[in-house]
Amino acid sequence: MNNRHAFIISDRTGITVEALASSLMSQFPSIDFKSETFMFIDSVDKAVKLVDKINVIYELMAERPLVYMTVVNDDVRDTLMQANGVFYDLFGTFIEPMERVLGVKSSHKVGKSHGVSDIKEYTSRISAMQFALTTDDGMALGHYHDADVIVIGISRSGKTPTSVYLSLHYSLFVANYPLTSDELKAKTLPQVLLDHKDKLFGLTIDPMRLLQIRQERYKGESYSSIKTCQMEVAQAEAQFRAAKIPF
Amino acid sequence: MNNRHAFIISDRTGITVEALASSLMSQFPSIDFKSETFMFIDSVDKAVKLVDKINVIYELMAERPLVYMTVVNDDVRDTLMQANGVFYDLFGTFIEPMERVLGVKSSHKVGKSHGVSDIKEYTSRISAMQFALTTDDGMALGHYHDADVIVIGISRSGKTPTSVYLSLHYSLFVANYPLTSDELKAKTLPQVLLDHKDKLFGLTIDPMRLLQIRQERYKGESYSSIKTCQMEVAQAEAQFRAAKIPF
Repeated sequence: MNNRHAFIISDRTGITVEALASSLMSQFPSIDFKSETFMFIDSVDKAVKLVDKINVIYELMAERPLVYMTVVNDDVRDTLMQANGVFYDLFGTFIEPMERVLGVKSSHKVGKSHGVSDIKEYTSRISAMQFALTTDDGMALGHYHDADVIVIGISRSGKTPTSVYLSLHYSLFVANYPLTSDELKAKTLPQVLLDHKDKLFGLTIDPMRLLQIRQERYKGESYSSIKTCQMEVAQAEAQFRAAKIPF
Repeated sequence: MNNRHAFIISDRTGITVEALASSLMSQFPSIDFKSETFMFIDSVDKAVKLVDKINVIYELMAERPLVYMTVVNDDVRDTLMQANGVFYDLFGTFIEPMERVLGVKSSHKVGKSHGVSDIKEYTSRISAMQFALTTDDGMALGHYHDADVIVIGISRSGKTPTSVYLSLHYSLFVANYPLTSDELKAKTLPQVLLDHKDKLFGLTIDPMRLLQIRQERYKGESYSSIKTCQMEVAQAEAQFRAAKIPF
């Protein structure tokens, strides 16, 4: 199998460039990429050191490594581009065309300053995550008056990841509540949910996908039979419809 | 203030393109962007509908909206590009240069198939997240034998977000443990931590940043004074050093 080294470089955490680079690399399954991420490359000094690293790999492999980067500062970017790499510049590629279309220059500022608004955003995000943790899986029902959203659904339909994701990315206060088999058979949803009807959001799932997920850990039990999976999904969706809950 | 509409389009969840687009747009603070994300645009039918939407905005504003997209399928991408927008094609821009450099064609497959390996990855990720939730903030110490990493640090140093992030993105079993003021004053770390010394990772923080974070919610208390923040950070770092824990 073909080998190729890849450098993933960011002046912040590198999460975005890492995601895009790995999506691009996954399009070449015949190539075995060795990738390494370098974050907070926000000075010429750090860039110079990285140039040395890239050049070492170039000498070693006799092939230019791929370099994916999002770097806002022009000096840092220009320094990096002196290395013997093949550059995929996520920021630079799009910022100049945007300047032309918008008719204004970009500010070229890295991220946001660590000012007051940033702290407010950070704390509201952390509060939201703490709320999701506290109210996960039907815990702490008394906190539902603080919730923005209450995600309801059957076991293994993806409530926890959905809640944590929404809290982390959108600072929403998201609780989640699992519908038990008794509650699925009941004519109406539990009163504790109906008390907050405007906040409810139903989560559903393809029964075949649910089957796969449940069988991964509970093979052979009735809980992870296709019959149970199909029945529970149907019951949950019927309840969502009856109660007019978006799902 | 200048207005501009932006469409963010993905054939998957759109998380990556959304992050890059918002980082690019944030470079133009004088422009008030109205952006909307369209996810799972993975068929020509869906693309045709979106083209109509883009054209409606174009007619309405007499200005082409910006369109940021990551779409792997050529037909879907070609369809979208018939709209009256200004296109920033994150995938298409880089995939062809990559093909040339690597000397192979890309597979042009959207994401991963929902096969067995995908289910395994999904369940291990969910297990990891559940582990992070169960062992957050010094809870469930009995689970530490299952941990890959135990993050330790003072209050508000970022232990929970770090743990949840590592679990979500790397499927690691990450517990976190808050060092109390008594534990900070002690000569050694608590025995429950020393029992798992190889798994410990210390988290530290700039005292000024800590001050801002603590003051956001606990203004006026000794907990959120600069003196306490500086002292706790120094104590924690001294303990990490003494115990030779990476931090």
